[in-house]
Amino acid sequence: MGRPRILVTNDDGINAPGIRALVDVVKQFGDPIVVAPDSPQSGQGHAITITKPLFLKKVDVFDNIEAYECSGTPADCVKLAKNVILKDSNIDLCVSGINHGSNASINIIYSGTMSAAMEASLEGIKSIGFSLLDFSFEADFTAAKHYASQIVESMLSYNAKKNILLNVNIPKLPLNEIKGIKVCAQGEGVWTEDFKESEDPRGQKYYWLTGSFKSELDDTNTDLWALSNGYVSVVPSKHDLTDYDSMEGIKTFERS
Amino acid sequence: MGRPRILVTNDDGINAPGIRALVDVVKQFGDPIVVAPDSPQSGQGHAITITKPLFLKKVDVFDNIEAYECSGTPADCVKLAKNVILKDSNIDLCVSGINHGSNASINIIYSGTMSAAMEASLEGIKSIGFSLLDFSFEADFTAAKHYASQIVESMLSYNAKKNILLNVNIPKLPLNEIKGIKVCAQGEGVWTEDFKESEDPRGQKYYWLTGSFKSELDDTNTDLWALSNGYVSVVPSKHDLTDYDSMEGIKTFERS
Repeated sequence: MGRPRILVTNDDGINAPGIRALVDVVKQFGDPIVVAPDSPQSGQGHAITITKPLFLKKVDVFDNIEAYECSGTPADCVKLAKNVILKDSNIDLCVSGINHGSNASINIIYSGTMSAAMEASLEGIKSIGFSLLDFSFEADFTAAKHYASQIVESMLSYNAKKNILLNVNIPKLPLNEIKGIKVCAQGEGVWTEDFKESEDPRGQKYYWLTGSFKSELDDTNTDLWALSNGYVSVVPSKHDLTDYDSMEGIKTFERS
Repeated sequence: MGRPRILVTNDDGINAPGIRALVDVVKQFGDPIVVAPDSPQSGQGHAITITKPLFLKKVDVFDNIEAYECSGTPADCVKLAKNVILKDSNIDLCVSGINHGSNASINIIYSGTMSAAMEASLEGIKSIGFSLLDFSFEADFTAAKHYASQIVESMLSYNAKKNILLNVNIPKLPLNEIKGIKVCAQGEGVWTEDFKESEDPRGQKYYWLTGSFKSELDDTNTDLWALSNGYVSVVPSKHDLTDYDSMEGIKTFERS
C-alpha cells in the first residue's frame, strides 16, 4: 500500500495562511493534492455552481505539491477534484481548512469549509473540516497544526463502516493552554443579526449584515462548551437532516 | 387574534411562477409578506452575504400584497424580513418555494429553498419549503397548490414545543393521480457528476457541472420512495447535524 492520497481544500482561498498550515500537517502522513477556490468564499454554505462554467488552473504555490485553483465554491472544488483531476485514483481523506474563524454549533450550516468536507463525504470520502477561532489573517496556527496532526493520524487509521465526517474547531489559545481533544455534539447557539443601514452614492438604501453569536453553554456535551473550556472540539456530522423525533407528531398531516 | 402573518420567499427569484402559486395558497390563511431574491439563486445552499451590501426594493408584483425584492440569497431574505422589515412584528409561518425542481433526499443540502426555510427555523419561526418535481418554467402547479394548502393549514394549527421545519416535495403528476401525503425520512441518493469540458474563446479550458441523480428506493420510509410511488413527501428536518451514532466510535480520538 502506498502513501495515502489526501485532498486539501478550503473556503478562504488558495492563498490563505490556513490552507498552507493544513498542507504542512498532511504532508507528514501522505501525498496531498490541493484544489481550492481562487478567492475567499466565506458564508457560501453548500453552494454549487450550475449556471456558469468553472475554470481550473494548475498553480505552483506549495513546494513540490500538485495544486489547482478553481473559480468555483468549496463544494465545486471537491467535485472537480474527484471527477476531473483524480478521476481514476482513490482519495483516502479530504481535509478542508484551516478556516479563519469558528464553524462550531450552527455555524456549520453557513460554512464553506464544512460544505467541502460534507461534499467529500457524500462522494464516499472520509473527511475533516478544521477551523481556528481566530479571524485574523495573522492568526497563529501552531496549536491548530499540533492538534490537526493528531486528528488526521487518528482518522487515517480509523476503520468505520461509513464515511466519517468531522467538524473540528480549535480554540484561540497557545498550545500549552489547550487541555486536549473532546468528542462532542453540535451546540445550540443563536445569531443576533444587526444590519447596518446606509446609503449608496446615488441615495439608495443598503444593508450590511453583521451580528453577534450567543452560545448556549449549559450542556457540557457540546462543541461550544468544549471550546469555551479550552478543548479542541470534534463533532461527527452527517448529511441526514431528518428530525426523527418530530415524525410521530406530524403524522396527523398525512392524507390518503 | 388577527390573521397569521406569513413570510413568503424562494430561491428561483420573485418573478418565478412557483412563488406566485405559493402566495395564492397562503393568502387564504393569513396575511402574506413576500421578501424574495431579485434573481434566481438555485444551488446556493445556505449562503449568506457578508462581504457586500444588500439592496432591498419594495415592488408591486402581487395584487395588494406587500412585497420586496432583495439582491441577496434566500437566507439573506429571511434575515432582512425578520430584522429589518418586520422587526417589531411576529411572523407566524415562513413558506419557501414552490421550487421548480426536487429538494428531496440529499438535495436539501444544496437547496436555496430549504436554506431559507431553515434560516426561518433558526430564527424561531416554523417553516416549510415546498418543491415540485418539475424544472419547467411552464410547470403545472395545480396539484402542488392543492397539497400545499392542506399542509399550510395543518402547520398553522399544529402546536409543537419547538419550531418544526418541513421539507415538502410534490411529484410531477396530475392532481387525481397523487395518492396523498406521507411523512417520511430523508432518503439516500447519489449524484453522479458529469463535467462537460470545453474551451472559452481564448482557448482556456472550462468545466460545466451536470449530473444525474440515483435514488436509493429500498427503504419505503423515505421521501424518495414516497415520491416515486405517487405521494407528496413531508420530511421534518433540523439543523443539528451531529452524527450521534458515530460518537462512541471516535472517542479514541480524544486526548487530554
